[in-house]
Amino acid sequence: MNIANLLGIAFLALASGHNLARVQDASLPPRQVPAKSLPVPTDVSPGMQAIIAAPLRADWDDLWKTGEEWRAAANTAAAKTIETLPAMRERLHVTVKPSTIHGVRVYIVTPDLISPEHRDKLLVHVHGGCYELFPGEAGTSEAIMMAGLGHFKVISVDYRMPPEAYFPGALDDAMTVYESVLKTSNPKNVAVFGTSAGGALVLEMMLRAKQLGLKMPGAIAPGTPMSDVTKTGDSFYTNEMVDNVLVSRDGFCDSATLVYAHGHDLKDPLLSPVYGDMHGFPPAILSTGTRDLLLSNTVRVHRKLREAGIEAELEVYEGQSHAQYGRDDRLPETREAFGEIIAFFDKHLGH
Amino acid sequence: MNIANLLGIAFLALASGHNLARVQDASLPPRQVPAKSLPVPTDVSPGMQAIIAAPLRADWDDLWKTGEEWRAAANTAAAKTIETLPAMRERLHVTVKPSTIHGVRVYIVTPDLISPEHRDKLLVHVHGGCYELFPGEAGTSEAIMMAGLGHFKVISVDYRMPPEAYFPGALDDAMTVYESVLKTSNPKNVAVFGTSAGGALVLEMMLRAKQLGLKMPGAIAPGTPMSDVTKTGDSFYTNEMVDNVLVSRDGFCDSATLVYAHGHDLKDPLLSPVYGDMHGFPPAILSTGTRDLLLSNTVRVHRKLREAGIEAELEVYEGQSHAQYGRDDRLPETREAFGEIIAFFDKHLGH
Repeated sequence: MNIANLLGIAFLALASGHNLARVQDASLPPRQVPAKSLPVPTDVSPGMQAIIAAPLRADWDDLWKTGEEWRAAANTAAAKTIETLPAMRERLHVTVKPSTIHGVRVYIVTPDLISPEHRDKLLVHVHGGCYELFPGEAGTSEAIMMAGLGHFKVISVDYRMPPEAYFPGALDDAMTVYESVLKTSNPKNVAVFGTSAGGALVLEMMLRAKQLGLKMPGAIAPGTPMSDVTKTGDSFYTNEMVDNVLVSRDGFCDSATLVYAHGHDLKDPLLSPVYGDMHGFPPAILSTGTRDLLLSNTVRVHRKLREAGIEAELEVYEGQSHAQYGRDDRLPETREAFGEIIAFFDKHLGH
Repeated sequence: MNIANLLGIAFLALASGHNLARVQDASLPPRQVPAKSLPVPTDVSPGMQAIIAAPLRADWDDLWKTGEEWRAAANTAAAKTIETLPAMRERLHVTVKPSTIHGVRVYIVTPDLISPEHRDKLLVHVHGGCYELFPGEAGTSEAIMMAGLGHFKVISVDYRMPPEAYFPGALDDAMTVYESVLKTSNPKNVAVFGTSAGGALVLEMMLRAKQLGLKMPGAIAPGTPMSDVTKTGDSFYTNEMVDNVLVSRDGFCDSATLVYAHGHDLKDPLLSPVYGDMHGFPPAILSTGTRDLLLSNTVRVHRKLREAGIEAELEVYEGQSHAQYGRDDRLPETREAFGEIIAFFDKHLGH
């Protein structure tokens, strides 16, 4: 490393102080933005245009208050998701089998063709859904896409959710699986990925692994992570009512996370990982969209990783709201987003 | 390269078709977004909070119609900018000397300390300002920051602007300097950088260099490039009246660019480089902010570069409007943004 590189890193280190929590200067006026009409972007595929044009999620302001209410709502939604899975598994030539690892429910997701150079690789998947949604098989959608498009074997963690368990139950289950995987796989051959609450869990797992002195995996892919559940992050405001998935910082996802947190401090890095120390993290690839309510909380994690000296790539997709890059495996935008993650894993795993 | 890498690249190639111009499906409804109030973000430095809290640029809807009117406005603004430069040069220990290269006006920007490993490196800077603003010394601000923070020698091109010359006068002048630099420097030791119209010019230079069969530089840093002047790009809508610098796709910058274009087809890749073929481009680092009116047109260039197989990094800064990462050399966010570009140049130059 030459002096110039050191200088660059020194700048990042100097700059890193500014990501600490700061108080609002009450004398600074908010910006008043008039009502507006957003046309559907012309520079995305027709399939993505249809997704972007969809109205706001109908139940975005269903604010259930208990784990039991959330589970009932999650089961109803999951039934619909599960209906779509057989066709996707067939399209992508993927088999999914339920199993358990040290008592934790998982799905073993296996493509018909595992690439020769992937035979010693293993991916751990933690699904999203605000720590409340996508129980059981409904949580395997992203794992199926990754297995089918990337020709990797994937273990998808069906972690406990309320009312079965509250914080840190989801994280505990994911760690049980990760620790088990470390016993049979070289950590350098393992990647961990997930989106939304799954993206947050990926980051929380790395923080916990550091606490426990466990080895880091070869790479991680936290997609549009719920990295800050304290309502901090500028796009909670700029993209409010613009993102047709999460819609608002006061919507269903915030409400669900509060139930999972169960009174625990929301600023704990194991719930809001943007506040964690990311030194020593593995190479990371982050994905988000320009209309994503979590755009800010994705780029803030990217900055934190870079400030900690981590090789971290950021991909931002035009016009997309929260996690829409993983909505339909047939769209070119989905192929592109998964293609970037697969290329990143191939670059970093095994080294 | 293993099969999996090839698969990843194949996905990107498959996905690349979707960036072609598409028609709007008239049956898709726009999203109606209510008026809103955006608090100043708490997760940036106090200096950046003040910049973000500033009201909309006072002259954002000055829509001058001729090169002469634009030059008068540019001269008034430039006088104010020039007042700030001596103190910044002193802070950053940088000397600026006017010169010419084959008749093109340039400023030679030299730090008191050039790092030993930078003594054979040379940066070419093309300033921004909608192809109309920052004539003369006023265009050297970003070059001073780069020279002082990165300890590089920089040649800043004071390209002709209306009414002195119209499209492609700015590009012609930048190319004259680039071609001259190639005669005395190893292209691998040269980087080209600029922001806004300067970012677009960086991309236009690469397209023109390909046409002319010239060698590519070792790296480029197009900051929040005006990559599409046809009003296409979703953040022209989502960040309208949110970005306090450019404010609107129908504001001063659009008007200025129309005068520069002088009737030329705005979709020509030498005016809207997002429509150009980016295969063979050098490694690139792009910078933008979550409130940037050109957020979409930065990420669209990033996608195009990635689809063309180019090593391209994207940095997105929390809460910032257009080009605010280069507003004040004393802010941690400025140090961070320049630090990323410097580290990127150090990684890629000379190889």
